[in-house]
Amino acid sequence: MNYPLTQIPERTEKPRQKGLTMVMDKGLSLRQVEDFLETGENYTDIVKLGWATSFVTPKLKEKLAIYKSAGIPVYFGGTLFEAFIVRKKFDDYRRILDQFGMEYAEISDGSLEMDGDEKCEYIRQLSKQVTVLSEVGSKDEAKIIPPYKWIKLMKAELEAGAWKVIGEAREGGNVGLFRSSGEVRQGLVEEILTEIPEEKIIWEAPQKSQQVWFVKLVGANVNVGNIAPHEVISLETIRLGLRGDTFSHFLDK
Amino acid sequence: MNYPLTQIPERTEKPRQKGLTMVMDKGLSLRQVEDFLETGENYTDIVKLGWATSFVTPKLKEKLAIYKSAGIPVYFGGTLFEAFIVRKKFDDYRRILDQFGMEYAEISDGSLEMDGDEKCEYIRQLSKQVTVLSEVGSKDEAKIIPPYKWIKLMKAELEAGAWKVIGEAREGGNVGLFRSSGEVRQGLVEEILTEIPEEKIIWEAPQKSQQVWFVKLVGANVNVGNIAPHEVISLETIRLGLRGDTFSHFLDK
Amino acid sequence: MNYPLTQIPERTEKPRQKGLTMVMDKGLSLRQVEDFLETGENYTDIVKLGWATSFVTPKLKEKLAIYKSAGIPVYFGGTLFEAFIVRKKFDDYRRILDQFGMEYAEISDGSLEMDGDEKCEYIRQLSKQVTVLSEVGSKDEAKIIPPYKWIKLMKAELEAGAWKVIGEAREGGNVGLFRSSGEVRQGLVEEILTEIPEEKIIWEAPQKSQQVWFVKLVGANVNVGNIAPHEVISLETIRLGLRGDTFSHFLDK
Repeated sequence: MNYPLTQIPERTEKPRQKGLTMVMDKGLSLRQVEDFLETGENYTDIVKLGWATSFVTPKLKEKLAIYKSAGIPVYFGGTLFEAFIVRKKFDDYRRILDQFGMEYAEISDGSLEMDGDEKCEYIRQLSKQVTVLSEVGSKDEAKIIPPYKWIKLMKAELEAGAWKVIGEAREGGNVGLFRSSGEVRQGLVEEILTEIPEEKIIWEAPQKSQQVWFVKLVGANVNVGNIAPHEVISLETIRLGLRGDTFSHFLDK
Repeated sequence: MNYPLTQIPERTEKPRQKGLTMVMDKGLSLRQVEDFLETGENYTDIVKLGWATSFVTPKLKEKLAIYKSAGIPVYFGGTLFEAFIVRKKFDDYRRILDQFGMEYAEISDGSLEMDGDEKCEYIRQLSKQVTVLSEVGSKDEAKIIPPYKWIKLMKAELEAGAWKVIGEAREGGNVGLFRSSGEVRQGLVEEILTEIPEEKIIWEAPQKSQQVWFVKLVGANVNVGNIAPHEVISLETIRLGLRGDTFSHFLDK
Repeated sequence: MNYPLTQIPERTEKPRQKGLTMVMDKGLSLRQVEDFLETGENYTDIVKLGWATSFVTPKLKEKLAIYKSAGIPVYFGGTLFEAFIVRKKFDDYRRILDQFGMEYAEISDGSLEMDGDEKCEYIRQLSKQVTVLSEVGSKDEAKIIPPYKWIKLMKAELEAGAWKVIGEAREGGNVGLFRSSGEVRQGLVEEILTEIPEEKIIWEAPQKSQQVWFVKLVGANVNVGNIAPHEVISLETIRLGLRGDTFSHFLDK
């Protein structure tokens, strides 16, 4: 930090098991990755190459190398996994992870129908090859999953070998954990937290109001994801009670 | 593409006559142009320097040179044409196009009243000097143009020499083709497509939901415009059925 | 300007006392600062490092040096001042301003309760050390300040030594001067302008519609603030009547 300030909540340090920030790269150039890392490296724990952007992104290997040299793990968005599954090409997907030297992968079922057992089987298999993040929730606005089912799915996927489960929000933050207005489904989140340890969940929270909400509920070291590269500094100030929205939250009462 | 995937719609390749992506540069620095081209060059067919940003943009000639060396045509936004016309300086405008070596120009009447015959006369004259794009639609929310009139204007402007006609949406995507909510005026678009060949129209579609809508209606190789430089990769995945919103659209049924 | 155009309103030139553009840097990397300055240097009068981003921003001294070499003053957002005040560390704050060679500072009370006299006392003390901008208005949506009180506060703070007063809008432009919809509180602004000289006020106007509104009300040389770095070129065209929204405003009638 650039100067001392008291009454700042303690932040975990890298490598973090909680207090993670997962950033979404949806097509940065190599120089833009360097720019992002200059400001965000210490505050970024893992990077997702959004959905299947890795299919069309030029200089993919060079990009992966930059993140690797910064010690930040990268994974392909879950939609890419689903694109291979819907085409019945799981083995191809595994080979491609190897080919690009990926050490993390996301398993999701946001865009297709997949039985819970089938999903857990993919988690079991893939977790022998890489560290697996598994995403719960649908990208479909009309598909409301009740809390008990979120919990059941999360438990099963963690037991099957997922390192973390991700609470789905879509890039725009208007499905899954959130109402179409972007508002958090508070009861859902609180109920999940009674059953699943907070450090095992990454909450997708692309919008500032959502980040504020999770920091207030869970604390400075909540795991959040789908953060835009240029919002990492802002998120860090929200975590530390140094933006208006959380200004009073961590002060001695 | 970085790895093989089946059931991907065929994309046209450069130089494209359909499947065009028109990107709006509203004041990028030279290095930002380079960054954009690193990721977007293969997916970008033409660049518009938004409205009259070219008037105040520093290093304009250097910027034009970068785009030129990448083989991507550039034109000044239609508002600049209108700014000269409202001042009765059409000849000055033509000289400025020459002075900057412009090979494309846009003719529009979004911010002033112009008779259809007068507009076609400008198209006829300017198309002797450059390749002309002509824009139909108003920037004025209150001015609703009925479908038959959109079609009549588009036909006349193509006959007068326009290379493509552009369906106006304003940068924010909330006028012209769109309701103030950003929703597409579906009946209007479908009626236009019964009369004007799809490859002759560039649909302004700055918002993701609009891009998705046009790809679903017209196909992977729809012409769309007013795309932000950092959204070109995203658009390409939407075209290919590799983002959640179009995930199932191109799969074998 | 890159070519001549008539009927363009006269713009003040640097160093400006009116017609100021205050830009918010909320965590740019060094290269991103250079990119912003390449396009925005001539149109940017002062830069705010948003809220307390300076606490977590890497390479802060190098960033300050780049702005300094461009001759653009920088100040830390008012929330940082408040973060020190709420911790009863005003003297520490003054030392930190010295330590970083700051020549400007913002005094605000958007996130805490502060008596008007106390605020003016801070302005008096700090204005012996640096040039002070003082911000009026609350970040709290529920806290509506009536016009006569805005005026009283602004007058008192200018008399206490503030160089300019800032009309609060928050980064999102939805509190203070604005309704939660982002719409300007027109009566409030007009009443303020009957009592406070326009050149003494910087209006926070992060959204385009707000910038348009102020340019139409006050003129091309209105002072506006909280402008995003990549929107400075756009703002300049709005000031000059070269974007659709102000296209007709400065034309000879």
